[in-house]
Amino acid sequence: MKLRPNTPLRLSQLRQDTRPAEERRLAPMMKALKAIHSATSPESMAPEDLERQRKGQEVLGRLIAPMAGMSWEPFSLSGMKAAWVRPHRGHDRRHAILYCHGGGYTSGNLGYSRPIASKLANVTGYEVLAFEYRLAPEHPYPAAVEDAMKAWDYLMYLGYGARDVVVAGDSAGGNLALVLTHRLKAMGRRLPASLILMSPWTDMTASGKSYQERADLDPSLTREYIQAVTAAYAKGEDLTSPYLSPLFGDFKGFPPVLIQAGTNEILLSDSVRLRDRLVASGVPCRLEVWKDMWHVFQMFPIKKANEAAESIGRFLLEQF
Amino acid sequence: MKLRPNTPLRLSQLRQDTRPAEERRLAPMMKALKAIHSATSPESMAPEDLERQRKGQEVLGRLIAPMAGMSWEPFSLSGMKAAWVRPHRGHDRRHAILYCHGGGYTSGNLGYSRPIASKLANVTGYEVLAFEYRLAPEHPYPAAVEDAMKAWDYLMYLGYGARDVVVAGDSAGGNLALVLTHRLKAMGRRLPASLILMSPWTDMTASGKSYQERADLDPSLTREYIQAVTAAYAKGEDLTSPYLSPLFGDFKGFPPVLIQAGTNEILLSDSVRLRDRLVASGVPCRLEVWKDMWHVFQMFPIKKANEAAESIGRFLLEQF
Repeated sequence: MKLRPNTPLRLSQLRQDTRPAEERRLAPMMKALKAIHSATSPESMAPEDLERQRKGQEVLGRLIAPMAGMSWEPFSLSGMKAAWVRPHRGHDRRHAILYCHGGGYTSGNLGYSRPIASKLANVTGYEVLAFEYRLAPEHPYPAAVEDAMKAWDYLMYLGYGARDVVVAGDSAGGNLALVLTHRLKAMGRRLPASLILMSPWTDMTASGKSYQERADLDPSLTREYIQAVTAAYAKGEDLTSPYLSPLFGDFKGFPPVLIQAGTNEILLSDSVRLRDRLVASGVPCRLEVWKDMWHVFQMFPIKKANEAAESIGRFLLEQF
Repeated sequence: MKLRPNTPLRLSQLRQDTRPAEERRLAPMMKALKAIHSATSPESMAPEDLERQRKGQEVLGRLIAPMAGMSWEPFSLSGMKAAWVRPHRGHDRRHAILYCHGGGYTSGNLGYSRPIASKLANVTGYEVLAFEYRLAPEHPYPAAVEDAMKAWDYLMYLGYGARDVVVAGDSAGGNLALVLTHRLKAMGRRLPASLILMSPWTDMTASGKSYQERADLDPSLTREYIQAVTAAYAKGEDLTSPYLSPLFGDFKGFPPVLIQAGTNEILLSDSVRLRDRLVASGVPCRLEVWKDMWHVFQMFPIKKANEAAESIGRFLLEQF
């Protein structure tokens, strides 16, 4: 909409005009998101599904412009592709974020990691380590967990303290962040300072009631997709294991957790029930449910995503 | 000396009476110390020398009563004997001290480590990790350095941050603490929070002038001993390497260092020149030269040893 000088601006008109503009702007991204979360059969992962999902992530990664003021430094972490995102100036050298990308354990890569990793670096001033864990169905459980542990060990090798590292993740990456923490705890090692979970996938048995209640609202996720990626990743393992469904693990001693989810996603119950379990275990926890938002909306170039990122920054400021 | 009631106490008398008492008390310890630092030939380490040194440490370890209020928890660190010293109550869970014992790289063990490790735990409230690195001549350089790195890696594995760990060492253990830090730096890893060095052995070329100037004052150390243990440990390697003589390394970026030495030791120059090199490199550093004190006097049950330990505690309080 072009405004001529001396024409009084009516707010209602502006709203009407920008809504469709925003929708037009987001349309190709939402289309890519839908492709990422599509599956033709709940029993298995068809090669063409996998191709479409991974292609969708590539497109989405390209559509979201990388954030200015950040360096992006890819490197090989003992053979695993990884990258540091560092704010150009004044970044905090004490703390770091280990970021686990989403994609149902069957898709996702460094390019797809970049938008959220950059936002996290931007709102915190911390360095963010992103990494490409091995994907199912080629590499089922526990490949991704082993790779996350490798990334964790690398941070420890460098000399970061566990209490200086925040583990963040979205969707399956939120699952991975929780499983990594369960594992560290079982090994008697120190735990991260905090967990930041964006629309985390916490229950592979798909028992949450939001699968029914939010199905019509969810613009991208489907139960079929969740079941297909579960089959590809878990390969017949017991889905109630806390290393697959961290929701069913023992959270005693966990560090403070921030959970963000959208009202419009079938995984909402995975967040709500995680909050309930954490609170029952005495773990400091905050759940934010963002109105009208969808699965991992934080990635998108929209106002609410920026607000959510800022809320993450404030939460971490409170922790340190 | 027994005081009868109503007999006025003359301080001068007390002094005269207690000096010999203190000397009598310390005599067997000083004898053991002399045995630890004896060698019959500067060219090599005779088996009977080695036996006498190690026996001397055993005796000294037994003569010094372990400190009350500390737990002593031996364990196997990937096959290496190690032990945690933890203050019974109110100990600091964030920081830890990695303690490297002395003994010319040819002797020393957990028992010998216990007195100083306990004092360090006592004055700081931190947990102290002691470990038995492999000894020369059976295991020459770099065995001890590899074992120190293994102990460091273990702390990092547990989740301590480099900046939360103090590395402490006496004599050859001071050498090891410095070499470990040079190595970590060369690997691009984060460095310890601070180094605490008691009578550190920093120059294996034995070029310090205190070898002449303090020879008559030193009650235990001899040039012959230093040369014998150097031959046993370095096995013909270039003694000017910073991994043998850390004095000759590059100290840029080193953390704050506290050095304690005695006026009465031939290794005094190793401390003084280290201070000079650290200051030239802009490293915060404090050198304390304790009057009338001998090599690693901190181990002994005397007032000045307690004061020196308290000074270590104050130095670390300033760092954190």
